[in-house]
Amino acid sequence: MSGSRTIAIAGATGAVGADMIKTLEKRNFPVKDIRFLASKRSVGKKLEFRGEKIEVEELTADSFKGVDIALFSAGASRSKEFAQPAIDAGAVVVDNSSAFRMDQNVPLVIPEVNPEDALKHNGIIANPNCSTIIMAVAVYPLHKAKNLKRLVAATYQAASGAGAAAMEELREQTSNVLEGKNINPEKFVHQIAFNLFPHIDIFLDNGYTKEEMKMLNEARKIMHHPELQISCTCVRVPVPRAHSESLNMEFENEITPEEARDILSSAPGVIVKDDIQNNIYPMPKDASGIDEVLAGRIRQDCSRNDKRGLEMFVSGDQLLKGAALNAVQIAELLI
Amino acid sequence: MSGSRTIAIAGATGAVGADMIKTLEKRNFPVKDIRFLASKRSVGKKLEFRGEKIEVEELTADSFKGVDIALFSAGASRSKEFAQPAIDAGAVVVDNSSAFRMDQNVPLVIPEVNPEDALKHNGIIANPNCSTIIMAVAVYPLHKAKNLKRLVAATYQAASGAGAAAMEELREQTSNVLEGKNINPEKFVHQIAFNLFPHIDIFLDNGYTKEEMKMLNEARKIMHHPELQISCTCVRVPVPRAHSESLNMEFENEITPEEARDILSSAPGVIVKDDIQNNIYPMPKDASGIDEVLAGRIRQDCSRNDKRGLEMFVSGDQLLKGAALNAVQIAELLI
Repeated sequence: MSGSRTIAIAGATGAVGADMIKTLEKRNFPVKDIRFLASKRSVGKKLEFRGEKIEVEELTADSFKGVDIALFSAGASRSKEFAQPAIDAGAVVVDNSSAFRMDQNVPLVIPEVNPEDALKHNGIIANPNCSTIIMAVAVYPLHKAKNLKRLVAATYQAASGAGAAAMEELREQTSNVLEGKNINPEKFVHQIAFNLFPHIDIFLDNGYTKEEMKMLNEARKIMHHPELQISCTCVRVPVPRAHSESLNMEFENEITPEEARDILSSAPGVIVKDDIQNNIYPMPKDASGIDEVLAGRIRQDCSRNDKRGLEMFVSGDQLLKGAALNAVQIAELLI
Repeated sequence: MSGSRTIAIAGATGAVGADMIKTLEKRNFPVKDIRFLASKRSVGKKLEFRGEKIEVEELTADSFKGVDIALFSAGASRSKEFAQPAIDAGAVVVDNSSAFRMDQNVPLVIPEVNPEDALKHNGIIANPNCSTIIMAVAVYPLHKAKNLKRLVAATYQAASGAGAAAMEELREQTSNVLEGKNINPEKFVHQIAFNLFPHIDIFLDNGYTKEEMKMLNEARKIMHHPELQISCTCVRVPVPRAHSESLNMEFENEITPEEARDILSSAPGVIVKDDIQNNIYPMPKDASGIDEVLAGRIRQDCSRNDKRGLEMFVSGDQLLKGAALNAVQIAELLI
């Protein structure tokens, strides 16, 4: 390999790990050497990178010698265990888990929103939660122009957010339901085939889930907007890999749908799909496999008597912009 | 049959028609005679009622002689064409279409909300839109206690809302996607299998769909609350027959989640499913086939600094409470 950086991917065999590999390839990331790390049971498995088969190694505290950038997507507990050894070995950690996101010493970065924060790191840069990223990429440009005060969100979150095995569970369970077979949920707490449920991550004392509160807490940090108010309902739906979100926004200043479409048309990472005459609007099927967040159904909130409210619907690939792509973009900021 | 009323069902071969028949049976409606009406191509088909096979007749202006109550679920254009002939023949029409809902001379009734309006009819009583019914059954008791000012809704609407053929399209298309076959959407404008889209009914000039504005206009009429503000996003999801809705409510008076649960525990037509410690909350799978609307995930809106906001998630069977059951309940008010 002809690049300048040695990369490690912790959690290389997972759904996000697979897309990190593809994204590094696709974006011609200057990789000199790459190391695929995972738990013991994946050791010896071979993954391809730029046509080369590379054996998966066990993720240990000794995995990071010579590594410049370590992309972590192996869950919060592994991030907590192995981020420091990686830093001690000289790597910068880009962490996709929730382990460090709200740590004051750790920047939380969406390159389209707050790239400058990435450079203030102390060894770790956190990748935000998928639904936060997909919302913020589309909402931040509007906030910058008109000052967002309050957001009411309802999400339509794909199976991929729960990992590769959950995506397979959706597929297999759906097939079993169609054949009239008994089903046995494993990765999800309830049947996901032809069903949905308002439960992602654990419940907190205020009745919200942790996933729902991430939208508020992470958005405040990323947007440097501590007064922002958000109420969110996160719902898992039987869709493979792209999240959608219905967003009701209240701004300090007036904003029309036309202005919003103009702003988003030139915003990075967003494609405006908003041609209702031709049945064009964001859908997870169209957002799957692409880098951009799709934004549409933009209209003036009819429940208000002023022009400070907008409705918008967005879809974004959970594994790409919601995770792997955002992490690789952060790594690009480090070069 | 031993009852006192002659009933006609216009649209008896549709998804809602089938559930009207089942609901009349299940609730021991006092049926003396029953007539199944449909379009020409269904004539001669036999449907069962209380163990008796009854032949489907063609829906014409002459179909209603001797009929006491005509339940219409054959689409708005047929309602417009055949409601008057039915009235002229002496029947009271309970109409499931959107044809007469906003007509000032036609009551729009949810028996749990405004049963008294049913008695003020001039021959027609309209059945509200499915998503309006499912919302209002759960929200009206809270409104009565605390005065609802504004509602922001995002829906998760089942295939059944588009009819029996659409339910079959979801099933068959899902099977085809799993087998890697090409798919060809017919009843839906886009692929519904493993996908979703924010588009139900036609688009209006304000950027909302007609379905979304029904939630506002119908709720104002049913609740006798002309100042009520609603902004709604209606989304079709790959679920067979129960709608879900994420509801963000703003009240004039303070209301806590505990109060809301108390109020809904004794409200007609609602089952509170709100035990997050045990992963119990409304889901379309559990709402399918039952009469009640499930309400849960009730929590204080964390985006407000007062106690005037609540979040709630509801699921209800689109074909039963959203259509057939509500129509039969209206018919019961006429006895």
